[in-house]
Amino acid sequence: MKIALAQLNYHIGNFESNTAKIIDHIQQAKQNGADLVVFAELCVSGYPARDFLEFDEFIGLCDESAKKIAEVCTDVACIIGLPTFNHKDEGKDLSNSAYFIENGAVKAVVNKALLPNYDVFDEYRYFEPSTDFNCIEFKGKKIALTICEDLWNTIENPLYVTRPMDSLIHQEPDIMINIAASPFSYNHDEERIAILSDNASRYKLPLLYVNQVGAQTELIFDGGSLVFDNTGKLIDELPYFEENLAYYTFNDDSTLSFDHTSTLKTERPSDIEQIHQGILLGIRDYFYKSGFKQAILGLSGGIDSAVVCALAAEALGPENVMAVLLPSRFSSDHSLKDAEDLVRNLGCKSETIAIKNITESIETALHPQFHNLPFNIAEENIQSRTRAVLLMAMCNKFGYILLNTSNKSEAAVGYGTLYGDMCGGISVIGDVYKTQVFELARHINRDREIIPVNSIIKPPSAELRPGQKDTDSLPEYDILDKILAEYIENRCSSAEIIKMGYDEHTVRRVIRLINLAEHKRYQTPPILRVSPKAFGMGRRMPIVGKYLS
Amino acid sequence: MKIALAQLNYHIGNFESNTAKIIDHIQQAKQNGADLVVFAELCVSGYPARDFLEFDEFIGLCDESAKKIAEVCTDVACIIGLPTFNHKDEGKDLSNSAYFIENGAVKAVVNKALLPNYDVFDEYRYFEPSTDFNCIEFKGKKIALTICEDLWNTIENPLYVTRPMDSLIHQEPDIMINIAASPFSYNHDEERIAILSDNASRYKLPLLYVNQVGAQTELIFDGGSLVFDNTGKLIDELPYFEENLAYYTFNDDSTLSFDHTSTLKTERPSDIEQIHQGILLGIRDYFYKSGFKQAILGLSGGIDSAVVCALAAEALGPENVMAVLLPSRFSSDHSLKDAEDLVRNLGCKSETIAIKNITESIETALHPQFHNLPFNIAEENIQSRTRAVLLMAMCNKFGYILLNTSNKSEAAVGYGTLYGDMCGGISVIGDVYKTQVFELARHINRDREIIPVNSIIKPPSAELRPGQKDTDSLPEYDILDKILAEYIENRCSSAEIIKMGYDEHTVRRVIRLINLAEHKRYQTPPILRVSPKAFGMGRRMPIVGKYLS
Repeated sequence: MKIALAQLNYHIGNFESNTAKIIDHIQQAKQNGADLVVFAELCVSGYPARDFLEFDEFIGLCDESAKKIAEVCTDVACIIGLPTFNHKDEGKDLSNSAYFIENGAVKAVVNKALLPNYDVFDEYRYFEPSTDFNCIEFKGKKIALTICEDLWNTIENPLYVTRPMDSLIHQEPDIMINIAASPFSYNHDEERIAILSDNASRYKLPLLYVNQVGAQTELIFDGGSLVFDNTGKLIDELPYFEENLAYYTFNDDSTLSFDHTSTLKTERPSDIEQIHQGILLGIRDYFYKSGFKQAILGLSGGIDSAVVCALAAEALGPENVMAVLLPSRFSSDHSLKDAEDLVRNLGCKSETIAIKNITESIETALHPQFHNLPFNIAEENIQSRTRAVLLMAMCNKFGYILLNTSNKSEAAVGYGTLYGDMCGGISVIGDVYKTQVFELARHINRDREIIPVNSIIKPPSAELRPGQKDTDSLPEYDILDKILAEYIENRCSSAEIIKMGYDEHTVRRVIRLINLAEHKRYQTPPILRVSPKAFGMGRRMPIVGKYLS
Repeated sequence: MKIALAQLNYHIGNFESNTAKIIDHIQQAKQNGADLVVFAELCVSGYPARDFLEFDEFIGLCDESAKKIAEVCTDVACIIGLPTFNHKDEGKDLSNSAYFIENGAVKAVVNKALLPNYDVFDEYRYFEPSTDFNCIEFKGKKIALTICEDLWNTIENPLYVTRPMDSLIHQEPDIMINIAASPFSYNHDEERIAILSDNASRYKLPLLYVNQVGAQTELIFDGGSLVFDNTGKLIDELPYFEENLAYYTFNDDSTLSFDHTSTLKTERPSDIEQIHQGILLGIRDYFYKSGFKQAILGLSGGIDSAVVCALAAEALGPENVMAVLLPSRFSSDHSLKDAEDLVRNLGCKSETIAIKNITESIETALHPQFHNLPFNIAEENIQSRTRAVLLMAMCNKFGYILLNTSNKSEAAVGYGTLYGDMCGGISVIGDVYKTQVFELARHINRDREIIPVNSIIKPPSAELRPGQKDTDSLPEYDILDKILAEYIENRCSSAEIIKMGYDEHTVRRVIRLINLAEHKRYQTPPILRVSPKAFGMGRRMPIVGKYLS
């Protein structure tokens, strides 16, 4: 039996494009002699379709797409994922389903049983978990078909009380197929391989795993579909961050063989390399899927905007990136020069708009209210917000999307101006800690100096008052980022973090800053998620809550 | 048996204050001869504590609070709600629990079985549903204690496959007690009474229902705790939008009697009256619980900002409200006058800051880029964003919180400027359609003219270009709001709405506008929720999704 794995990039609710892409790959696979083509979880609708799922029309359109797909399934079978109506009286209205389509008709329906409802996942919001499990017979073989999380109920810390494969195994399947929509984070590939390998060895079955690829706003799907033998050994791994169609022969002796040269990695790529690739896909798909081409950003001469500018130029082409230098009376000469060097290195477009006259006119207008109160955060923020007004005016006039350049460390402690530098259509490095931004800059520079070395080595500064440095207000980033990770990623309390050896005053201050900045983060753009715990839909905190650890 | 119902206002994560308040009411009730005091669901932690629940320290603090509360439970028992660790190996780590405390110790633990995970609710994100059900014996009576949603699995369209009372009823309980954290919407009180009454009559048991009161950022809890006899008749209803402690005697003949004068309503208050009261509580608690006193807003002379200003003055006191008039070259004389009249009627503070010089300096700075391109949305938005810069500068200098004045109709179709009039700490009327804003204005004026009649009767205009009217860009609000409600609240497709008799072109355009504005709404402040479907945490839409209905 020849099985094709189709690792594709879908677009939420774009039924025309998703259906055409699925049909095209079925026809391609059929021409290449495949008996079965396997697509990813919820490929018909795109994932996550979120509350579009609450529209009956949306589910109806998924059904229509499935009918069109079934029509081309002659002499070839396929597995597709889509939301379907749950026809039982009790329970949620929908199921997260897989259709096994053969001879132009749906031959079997499998519904997902384990519904992730943590971090970025909300599946129990929509779907009723399945409670009955049946293998699918196809060409004399029994397939145990499951959907993503169905294989993720780990032995050590089981999140669910059931395990679909424990039922299916009694029907003596010959092979496992799992279709998934499993989002990227820099450590997720290793976890995925470990858990799936564990399934293959536990049930002594070969396993084919098909993931989505492509970004849906903040969520990046990295592909990297996987093939295991019945001892749990990984025998093939599809490319990451790009589409692919690969063929495997399921032999009578239960082995899987293939003709193509395997891209199986001997060494895992570094976190920073993965983050780099993930962000490029994230930027590209955000623009492509929302129908925009041109990005704009403010370039300060600092490292954050330099890294974002370089990433945007790589993702969209330098001709589609407009860098705007917005110097104030506090901008240093080296900042302007560093920004200009970067623009030259990248070959992107640039403009310079001084903000001094504008901030002066604002301060003049406010003089009757402010009298002669000392310069403070109000005047600092006026500069940052003036820049946002100019950048957004450029967006409105010329159709750019503004890229947000905040990093995760400043987003965490609220070191940014709401409606100022916290603006943007999408946050590019909002899930990348400052220390990782430095790494990313060096990685971008691995072959030649793209980001001016001066932007990397000078002490970080917002340049909103004379001689300002980030460390005037914040701990050194190598300390800060470690405390942030313990609190944000690991959910340790201040007491636990202090016990690790960090300064008590610093820990308490940092955690206080994180919690006090919830109201700011609530209003910031979606953040490309590259870590296991990003700000945004995966981290939901109260705004008026008092608990500060 | 004398039972006290404590309908109180909690603060998420404020263990000190919540615990003190619970202990104080136990002692009060004990002095008044109560045998049992019933508090609301998750009263110890406040609700919704959201991802604070993922911190082990947070759950530990809940446990510590429960111990303190238990210490005062001598000669009086109490029921409190709190999150607890689920000690089973499999499943989620937490339970949504009720403790029955007697003689200084936890005598029984009831865990919630039906976990709402729709609209604003995310309970399956944290909690494992209970599967075993036991009545609690107390003073010779059997109490069937359930938690909120446990009684909400309706007969007509059951969302869950179990019904805890169907198990509990076999143990022959004498009375039902339900503790809840059920948020307000203008039609929720009637639904609540109907469903609970149905439970009392179906199981032929009297029912005591205790709700939380008070706002937690966007979610407003309206109290209105309820008492039913064993035929399902509502025999008492606690006040809405305020704290209360009420006593009931559970007699041997299974009747409930009470001494106080019942506030049972003969007529339901109007939607607008409920919205008015809900918003007042929402504003008050947002400021109080976040430790702020002073509000600021931009006053245009239009109806939206006038209504928000009047609500803020009523909620916080006019001395705590700063109204800023920010006229541009397009502001009409009558707008300024209407704004001034409102300030005089309310007695709030006000300042006037003209924005003309600032917008001119911005346009001058942009001249090299804009050349002589025609005036368009870019220049319109510059005005709106300039106002935001000034208002936020006032916030930063003086410690105000900016009130957002967008209504639900404009939030829906994206008729507002991101980082301009869409700014604010909290959106006051973002869940109130424009036609309802008019009703609300008339309701506020029911005794005397507070909001100048001219603000109510003149055609709505953003005044961002000469002679502009909302109807230049949008359908009339009475048509628009109906289409919006069909799509947003009822999730009808465009085809279904057109079939109702609305103009096809208008319907398609409106729905397109709604979907295209997702990226704007993503970045707007939390919106006080007064309807069954508010923008924000209860409506989660993709940003790059293509489906437009």
